[in-house]
Amino acid sequence: MDSESSLCDKLAACTRIFVMQGLIGLFGHVSVYDPEAKRVFITPGMGSDKADLRAADMVLTDLDGQALDGEQRAPVEWPIHTALHATREDALAVAHLHTPYATLFAIAKRKFRPVTLQGALFSGGVPLYSEAHLITTPARGRRLAKVIGNKRAALLRGHGIVVVGRNLAEVLYASLVLEDDAKKSAQAASLGSLGFISLEESRAFAAEIALERRAQRAWDYFSRLEARWDRQAGTGRMELFP
Amino acid sequence: MDSESSLCDKLAACTRIFVMQGLIGLFGHVSVYDPEAKRVFITPGMGSDKADLRAADMVLTDLDGQALDGEQRAPVEWPIHTALHATREDALAVAHLHTPYATLFAIAKRKFRPVTLQGALFSGGVPLYSEAHLITTPARGRRLAKVIGNKRAALLRGHGIVVVGRNLAEVLYASLVLEDDAKKSAQAASLGSLGFISLEESRAFAAEIALERRAQRAWDYFSRLEARWDRQAGTGRMELFP
Amino acid sequence: MDSESSLCDKLAACTRIFVMQGLIGLFGHVSVYDPEAKRVFITPGMGSDKADLRAADMVLTDLDGQALDGEQRAPVEWPIHTALHATREDALAVAHLHTPYATLFAIAKRKFRPVTLQGALFSGGVPLYSEAHLITTPARGRRLAKVIGNKRAALLRGHGIVVVGRNLAEVLYASLVLEDDAKKSAQAASLGSLGFISLEESRAFAAEIALERRAQRAWDYFSRLEARWDRQAGTGRMELFP
Amino acid sequence: MDSESSLCDKLAACTRIFVMQGLIGLFGHVSVYDPEAKRVFITPGMGSDKADLRAADMVLTDLDGQALDGEQRAPVEWPIHTALHATREDALAVAHLHTPYATLFAIAKRKFRPVTLQGALFSGGVPLYSEAHLITTPARGRRLAKVIGNKRAALLRGHGIVVVGRNLAEVLYASLVLEDDAKKSAQAASLGSLGFISLEESRAFAAEIALERRAQRAWDYFSRLEARWDRQAGTGRMELFP
Repeated sequence: MDSESSLCDKLAACTRIFVMQGLIGLFGHVSVYDPEAKRVFITPGMGSDKADLRAADMVLTDLDGQALDGEQRAPVEWPIHTALHATREDALAVAHLHTPYATLFAIAKRKFRPVTLQGALFSGGVPLYSEAHLITTPARGRRLAKVIGNKRAALLRGHGIVVVGRNLAEVLYASLVLEDDAKKSAQAASLGSLGFISLEESRAFAAEIALERRAQRAWDYFSRLEARWDRQAGTGRMELFP
Repeated sequence: MDSESSLCDKLAACTRIFVMQGLIGLFGHVSVYDPEAKRVFITPGMGSDKADLRAADMVLTDLDGQALDGEQRAPVEWPIHTALHATREDALAVAHLHTPYATLFAIAKRKFRPVTLQGALFSGGVPLYSEAHLITTPARGRRLAKVIGNKRAALLRGHGIVVVGRNLAEVLYASLVLEDDAKKSAQAASLGSLGFISLEESRAFAAEIALERRAQRAWDYFSRLEARWDRQAGTGRMELFP
Repeated sequence: MDSESSLCDKLAACTRIFVMQGLIGLFGHVSVYDPEAKRVFITPGMGSDKADLRAADMVLTDLDGQALDGEQRAPVEWPIHTALHATREDALAVAHLHTPYATLFAIAKRKFRPVTLQGALFSGGVPLYSEAHLITTPARGRRLAKVIGNKRAALLRGHGIVVVGRNLAEVLYASLVLEDDAKKSAQAASLGSLGFISLEESRAFAAEIALERRAQRAWDYFSRLEARWDRQAGTGRMELFP
Repeated sequence: MDSESSLCDKLAACTRIFVMQGLIGLFGHVSVYDPEAKRVFITPGMGSDKADLRAADMVLTDLDGQALDGEQRAPVEWPIHTALHATREDALAVAHLHTPYATLFAIAKRKFRPVTLQGALFSGGVPLYSEAHLITTPARGRRLAKVIGNKRAALLRGHGIVVVGRNLAEVLYASLVLEDDAKKSAQAASLGSLGFISLEESRAFAAEIALERRAQRAWDYFSRLEARWDRQAGTGRMELFP
């Protein structure tokens, strides 16, 4: 287990990469959990410019979303994070994003099914939380936890996504994979009906390719890109969502 | 109420953010209104490079579009602004834009309906001004005001959009939301039929989430991005419209 | 009439703007014609990096495509330019481009019809040259001139577009308008059937709005952007075509 | 034949251009083959940042994928390269990419057929390797070689593409052409059914236009762009794949 200081460094780095990739902006937040101390570290809420986020900017809360330190408050949708950290042992890191393409599956009436080998991570499906509101109460958080079950991610109707993982590298990689697969699905759909990766093929792929090593390499790669990033939104503009 | 000098500073900032976001360019203009003095401040017309716009660049007119000061003339579509400022008390700020995605709803034969929670701002609909010309006369302006009624925005057929608000932060936020929702609609449509946010859900969402605070945070966020923007069109190219 | 030196300056500027806008790259060329001397000035051929093009880089040819000066040769598709300069008095400037969106109408089996007010420039239609080859001979050039007739532009099947105008500002503006209208058509099509600007509406629009003034303002605007352009392909990548 | 040192310089340059164009990133690799020494030079594997790749970074292997020098290992999918280098005399350069648009044809149930004149390079078709796994064994490599036959490229289902050529310039140009043609196919499809370049038209085009000269000019052009590239992913973000 990382020290809390090391965790916060990684949380800041992960979030800066999400900003660089256009997956976090005005909205969106990421958290990590220390299960022994039952403490949550979460990125600051709506409106903060996270392109230069540092460890010291994180908000520390308990599992009831109460800030334990400093003056900042947790983002209003903190129950997303606390509900998942509290109920799933394998949810030590949680991201809530409004990624441009995966969110399309929270709008179109169509179930997400992976079309790429890497997308086989999500062969179990990505369930939909269908209530049309922000997750601002513990009760809503618990309902979300129930919807997501033991899956890696959920779609929030007309809103965005939630991705969970055992650590930040896994959450980063899984979020990027989900976005990539959703983008290819949306773009390939204009060419004809899509071919999916079956559950059996997904299992065979997962048996061959270790997620952990793959996620770590992606982390290293994007960290290097982030280190030389010019802090400009590359389109010259930042999406409103995320 | 802001002083006129402060209003002009904000008008310049708002417009620079629209440029950064690719929502104003060769065309498009934004105005604010001082209802006591019955004076309109409006950005300069077609062709000016607004990436470095300052308060001193604004054109001051009366409600008849007559410039009251300096040598610059108001953009030829000034009647959009004066008609709305004159007839709606809640239209203290008005933007006329040709945003890439919302304008698609002024082309395709399909009514705009929100697909995102934030888009619930527009749950009342976005009416269409169906005449195929620029709004260059007071009579056309009045017809536009009639079409838009008490709504937040209107579509101009084959042309662009008009967004009104009580202040510039509200107009900025509403414009970005409309563009984002329209973009997601267009992109999700390739995946299947769309799910909309119902009027009832929109009302429930609006009751929970204060627009004013949300708009202010978006303003602060994009202001920070604009302050470190490199003035390059991020795509290396600027859309003709806007 | 501009002096030849001034014409070449403008030709270089126009081409740099096309590069900035992503409408010329590895391929594509622009020419101007001096009808008294019967001399053609044309940008260098395939493979030259035109982001910093200067007047001295132009190739001077006669109407038979013979270089009259220096060591450079005209692009292999010079007959596009000479055929149009020779046969149309109003074709003093000609651009051959492979713009990403207008070219889609040279691929999909669908006639181009304008969906925007500005696109009314092309209300007469954009005819298709349907032979699948490059325009590398005078005979092909003449057939193209016959296809284009008195229209502003033609589509080259599976290839690109040709735009003509009385001067470079008109060609620049018309090319940008055609690309913008084609882009909106392609993107709006996912939302439903499109509404077009009728011939009658186009005429009424043209009667109100002077093309010349509009083209000049667009020229001034994009010139200012080009002056502060960082010479990077804004997407970090340059399209192969154009 | 280039010296091995010159080959490695070119391999590094080609790969940097692929990075600039957004066609190689976290994943993807390129190789060249010295048929006399039966030695393969291949770019480093997953996760390396190839924006500044140099000749000294290449991995040298034999046809069994065994590294012959240094500490680096070949990418896990080395059998793609060795199988093609070993069995096709005209496959002296091989790229494995996950290009955003060509990969759509490895997802949608639709055969690739060229829609552009340049795409006529692929008039023979682009066969599909339909097994859902990475090419990590010599047996899989041999099956891929059988699928690709004497064609220029293959699609890997739910995964990416393989492009072969007699040299790196040819592989670069062919990869860019395939991506461009696939992009136009996907985007034009929203406008209606597509017109293809027939086999007969393709042959006529190829007879007129020499691939070798064309590929060399594209190489020179993109080399010049790469020399002034700012090393930023132009979208401000790098696709996960490639």
